[in-house]
Amino acid sequence: MTPDFDFTRWMTGQLDAVERALDAWVNVDATLSQGHQAPADLMAAMRYAVLDGGKRLRPLLVLAAAQTTGCTADHPAALRAACAVELIHAYSLVHDDMPCMDNDVLRRGKPTVHVRYGEAVALLAGDALQALAFELLTPPGGEVPDAQQAALCGLLARAAGCAGMAGGQAIDLASVGLRLTEPQLREMHRLKTGALLQASVLMGAACGSGSVSASALSSLQNYGGAIGLAFQVVDDILDVTADSATLGKTAGKDADADKPTYVSLLGLPRARAYAQELHAQALAALTQSGLNDVRALRALADMVVERSH
Amino acid sequence: MTPDFDFTRWMTGQLDAVERALDAWVNVDATLSQGHQAPADLMAAMRYAVLDGGKRLRPLLVLAAAQTTGCTADHPAALRAACAVELIHAYSLVHDDMPCMDNDVLRRGKPTVHVRYGEAVALLAGDALQALAFELLTPPGGEVPDAQQAALCGLLARAAGCAGMAGGQAIDLASVGLRLTEPQLREMHRLKTGALLQASVLMGAACGSGSVSASALSSLQNYGGAIGLAFQVVDDILDVTADSATLGKTAGKDADADKPTYVSLLGLPRARAYAQELHAQALAALTQSGLNDVRALRALADMVVERSH
Repeated sequence: MTPDFDFTRWMTGQLDAVERALDAWVNVDATLSQGHQAPADLMAAMRYAVLDGGKRLRPLLVLAAAQTTGCTADHPAALRAACAVELIHAYSLVHDDMPCMDNDVLRRGKPTVHVRYGEAVALLAGDALQALAFELLTPPGGEVPDAQQAALCGLLARAAGCAGMAGGQAIDLASVGLRLTEPQLREMHRLKTGALLQASVLMGAACGSGSVSASALSSLQNYGGAIGLAFQVVDDILDVTADSATLGKTAGKDADADKPTYVSLLGLPRARAYAQELHAQALAALTQSGLNDVRALRALADMVVERSH
Repeated sequence: MTPDFDFTRWMTGQLDAVERALDAWVNVDATLSQGHQAPADLMAAMRYAVLDGGKRLRPLLVLAAAQTTGCTADHPAALRAACAVELIHAYSLVHDDMPCMDNDVLRRGKPTVHVRYGEAVALLAGDALQALAFELLTPPGGEVPDAQQAALCGLLARAAGCAGMAGGQAIDLASVGLRLTEPQLREMHRLKTGALLQASVLMGAACGSGSVSASALSSLQNYGGAIGLAFQVVDDILDVTADSATLGKTAGKDADADKPTYVSLLGLPRARAYAQELHAQALAALTQSGLNDVRALRALADMVVERSH
C-alpha cells in the first residue's frame, strides 16, 4: 500500500475501460445470437440509455472491489461485471422515468428514453438491457470460469429483483404522500438503491481468485450497505440544494411529488450529519476488512458523500 | 423405448411439479435476500401473472428435453430451468399487455395485470419476474452445478434479450400496418416466440450429465425452431378461427390491429399446410437426433399443432 494513490488517474483509466466496453457490448453487431440480429431502433434506444452519460458509480465500485482481490480493469470477469451492473442501473432509470412511474422528461441533461423513442420502445429497451446484463456475465468460451459466471449472475439477479431494486421501487411507489418512519425510509432505500450498490462491491470481490475471507466479505458488505444509504441521503440533499442544470435531471421533484426523503424526515442539517456518519461507517468497514489495497474503495466513499450531482 | 408411452399421464405429472414449484418460488417468504423481503403488493402481482393459468408449454419442453438426457421432473436443474423459462414468458405477457404495447385487458380469461394492479406495479412485476428467473437458475449451496447454472443463464439471457424475444417484439411493434414478406414475418416470429421455445429445448438438454452429442444438440435446435414457428402459425390460425372464450384472450385482435400474420399473408388453407409442414420437420429432427427417448418431445410437437387454444 503506497501513500501516493492517484484516485483521479485510477478513475480515468477505469472509466475509459468501462465506456469502451459498453460501447462494444451494447451494439447490434456484438449481440448476435443464434444468427439473430437485434432490430436497429431497439438497439439505438438501448445505446441512448446507456452510453455517454452517468457517473458510472456502480462499475467503479465493482472495479475497486475487484482491485482488492488483485484484479485490474482489463480482467474479463471484472469488466463484464462492471458493465452488467451498469446495464441493470440504466434499465431501471428507463422504466422509472416512464409516464406510469415518475413521468420524468429529463435525465442526464437529455430527453428521457420514452420521450425520444416512445413508450413501447422504452419498455422493451429496459427489458432487453436487463437480459443483456446476464448475457455479459455468461460469455461462451471459458473467458470467465463457470463458478464466477454463476456467482455473478446470482448476486446480480437477487440485487435487481423483488427483494432488491424492483422491490424498493414498489415500496417507493406505495409511499407517495405517506409519512414514513426513519426505519421504513431506510428499508426502502436499502432495497431501491442500496441493494445494487452493495451487489456491485460483492460482485467485484467475486471476480478474484477466491482468496477473500468470509470476514473480509462481510466487511465489504457493510461498506456497500453504508455507502448505498449514504448515496441516497446525499441524493435527497441535492434534490433540494442543487439546480436541474447541475443535477442533469429535474431538481426538487421528490418534494414536488410529496415523496418522503431524508431531508423531509430529518431536516437538512441532520440529513447532512447522517451522510457523514454513514461515510465514517463505510471507512471503518474497510479498515476492518483487513484487505490490503482499499484505496479506491475509500476514495469512492469520499466521492459519494462529497459529490455535487 | 416402450410403445405404450402415456403422454397425458406424463404431462399431468410434470405440470403438477411445475405448478407446485412456481407456487413455492414466486413467494414472498421464498425470495428473502440479504434479509430483505419483497413488498406484498409487488409479489401479489407477480403471483397473479404466473400462477393458475397458462399452458406451460415452455416448462414442458424443458422437462421433455431434459428427459432425453435422463432427467426426471424432480431433477433440480430441470425443474428450475422449466420455471425460469415460464417466468420470462409470464413477464413478457405482462409488459406486452400494457397500454403502451398491445393494450389488452383480458389474458387467460382474467383481467390483465395492469388492469388489476395498475400500470406501475405491472411494469415492476414484469421487471422483477425477469430477475427472479435468473435467481431460480442460481441457487446457492451446490444443488445445481456451477457449469449448469452458467449454461442455463446464458441460454435464457440470449433468448430473452435484444437478439431474441425483446428484439422480436420490437420488430412486431414496428410492423403494424406494414406488409411483411414471408421471410420477414418468419424472422419476427423466430425472435419473438421461437427464441424462447427453442431455448426451452436447449436448456432442458443442458440439464443432463453432458452426454448429448453436438449433432444431437443441433437436431434438438432444429426441432425447437420448427415447433417455435409452428406455434406462431397455429396462433395466427386460432386468432381468426376460435372465439375469445376458448382462447382466454381477445380473439381477432391481430387482424383488428392490422398486424401481419401467416393467415393474412398466406390465407387460411396455406397457413394450415405450413403448420403441418413444420410439424413434420420437427418430427424429422427428433428422428435425426438419434436420442433414445424422444416420446415426450414428439407428443409436444403434436400438441402444438393440434391445440385449440
